[in-house]
Amino acid sequence: MRVPALLGALAVLSALLYRLLRRRERERAQVLFFPVEPVMCARPLCARGRGPCECGLWQRERAACRLCALLLTAQRTLDVCVFTISSRELAHAVLVLHRRGVRVRVITDSGHMALAASQVGNFRRAGIEVRHDQDTNYMHHKFAIVDGSILLNGSLNWSSQAIYGNKENVIVVKLPDIVNPFVEEFESLWNEYDPSKFIFSPQK
Amino acid sequence: MRVPALLGALAVLSALLYRLLRRRERERAQVLFFPVEPVMCARPLCARGRGPCECGLWQRERAACRLCALLLTAQRTLDVCVFTISSRELAHAVLVLHRRGVRVRVITDSGHMALAASQVGNFRRAGIEVRHDQDTNYMHHKFAIVDGSILLNGSLNWSSQAIYGNKENVIVVKLPDIVNPFVEEFESLWNEYDPSKFIFSPQK
Repeated sequence: MRVPALLGALAVLSALLYRLLRRRERERAQVLFFPVEPVMCARPLCARGRGPCECGLWQRERAACRLCALLLTAQRTLDVCVFTISSRELAHAVLVLHRRGVRVRVITDSGHMALAASQVGNFRRAGIEVRHDQDTNYMHHKFAIVDGSILLNGSLNWSSQAIYGNKENVIVVKLPDIVNPFVEEFESLWNEYDPSKFIFSPQK
Repeated sequence: MRVPALLGALAVLSALLYRLLRRRERERAQVLFFPVEPVMCARPLCARGRGPCECGLWQRERAACRLCALLLTAQRTLDVCVFTISSRELAHAVLVLHRRGVRVRVITDSGHMALAASQVGNFRRAGIEVRHDQDTNYMHHKFAIVDGSILLNGSLNWSSQAIYGNKENVIVVKLPDIVNPFVEEFESLWNEYDPSKFIFSPQK
């Protein structure tokens, strides 16, 4: 084999490697925009192996269904750190994961978890661990981490108004340089909001 | 040159290329977390070439300063699409860019731009184009795009409470697969919120 041939092979291999890495980069990132309409049905997404529901509502493709389906890919852990959690569809997905044995942890804002539509009570009744801030500022993050490796983060609160009404976004990434700081932030807040550290003179 | 030597060179070059692309990936993404304390001073960031201000407040490194400094790297365009804009420091940076000849466009929420602390009035007085929604739902995005290529997106509204009080995040990315959908979303909303399309029977 001659030198020019090897240099040619080198160039081809480098180009292939570059394309492979670019594709990996693309697969590791997608963006979801909201609002979506009409209202979706999460039942077939949550019930593995069953056919579509006959309700006539959207069941896939739309951003809300993709978000729900992404959450349902969790095999080991789901860490939710969201300001407002009142969407029944997304809460249903979280409860399904909990019943499947996925370790679910939820961090939310103390003021907003007291709202009538909040799903935090349902989580706690099901045995899901929920922790929250205890000060006058907001726990305003809106992110979730699937299996410690997929980050869903953006402006979207987990509420029907956000999903079906507002202009919102969720970035979905698997890039460790973005995901890992959020894993650390979650652990830091989980520790900060440990109920054993609470001061029982609420400021809110 | 022998074949084994060339194959060795091929392996080394592939490894170097991989490391280079990984470093590029890392450089293209960073995450900022809030709150920060104490209050920052944006003056030296906004005034190129001058020394530090003597106020004693934080002037660099902290997430808020980094966010402000990132905005100030804009050479041609700054597209702001943020729900609440009341931070004087960030508004100051936007006004500085406008005065430097950068084309600044702002999209915000119609309800929140009417709040007393809103900086939208200052933007308009300076001649910056501002557009907003005209319905009962929220324009809830919190992103900005620098020169069409750097995206700053997360939970952070541009308010003092968000910067100095709340738990918040901003992802900074240059990855086209993430940035480009936001460029399209901005153009779509800019077009949707064209004042010539307004219906003059406000629902809010």
